[in-house]
Amino acid sequence: MQSDEQEIRQLVSTWMAASKAGDVETVLSLMADDVIFLMPGQEVMRKADFAAAARAQSGEGIKGASQFDGRSEIQEVKVLGDWAFMWTKLTVIVTSPRDPQPMTRAGYTLSILQKQRGKWLLARDANMLAPVSSKRYLAPLLTAL
Amino acid sequence: MQSDEQEIRQLVSTWMAASKAGDVETVLSLMADDVIFLMPGQEVMRKADFAAAARAQSGEGIKGASQFDGRSEIQEVKVLGDWAFMWTKLTVIVTSPRDPQPMTRAGYTLSILQKQRGKWLLARDANMLAPVSSKRYLAPLLTAL
Repeated sequence: MQSDEQEIRQLVSTWMAASKAGDVETVLSLMADDVIFLMPGQEVMRKADFAAAARAQSGEGIKGASQFDGRSEIQEVKVLGDWAFMWTKLTVIVTSPRDPQPMTRAGYTLSILQKQRGKWLLARDANMLAPVSSKRYLAPLLTAL
Repeated sequence: MQSDEQEIRQLVSTWMAASKAGDVETVLSLMADDVIFLMPGQEVMRKADFAAAARAQSGEGIKGASQFDGRSEIQEVKVLGDWAFMWTKLTVIVTSPRDPQPMTRAGYTLSILQKQRGKWLLARDANMLAPVSSKRYLAPLLTAL
């Protein structure tokens, strides 16, 4: 029997593999119904928004779909009963059929996971991916919270 | 006696007030020694990095310091024993002495807090502030984790 931490690491592996395969249904099965996704410069994304956007991006098997590759390096997993948090260093390479130049984004993620009926699910997710070539700016540190 | 959630809300109020006042030491007293700050397009920032950068930004009382204003709208606080998570909607307005045009950044934060010796402290922080006028981009959703 796997430990909670092993199960969470397996969730990340499954997520990445399903993303590469364009398998939206598997990715959706790894998140809680009340999941929220937080990203820079964007409104909160909920599960239905994620499903619609992911299906559009994956092309639902159409030839024009974008190709994803990436790797997730887990920096910390902390289990707190039926909840856990995790942060990772993520690199994603997207190749669009409309642009032969692959686009690389990298950055950190901070996630909250919840064990529901014995299965770990993504519950809250902060995604700080940025284009690798982007100009850095100094965020207002004193108000980082 | 305050509840844990009330204490965490008080931490946010104190943090914002101390930030506006340029009171770096108070802000530092609200974070764990092993705190990490995650931001788009930047490396992990630890407490010593935060202290150095915040002291430079606050100008240590010098006339040339930037002025901060902002508000934090707490969206959720969930207490899990001696740990908690929280996400907020944050708006920050920075006025630099070198530029009369105030700069507004807005976005979400996702934070992990830990109660140490009876006091709640910020332990992990994801800050997704972006310039309000920035062009939006569609992040690669399937690899959001």
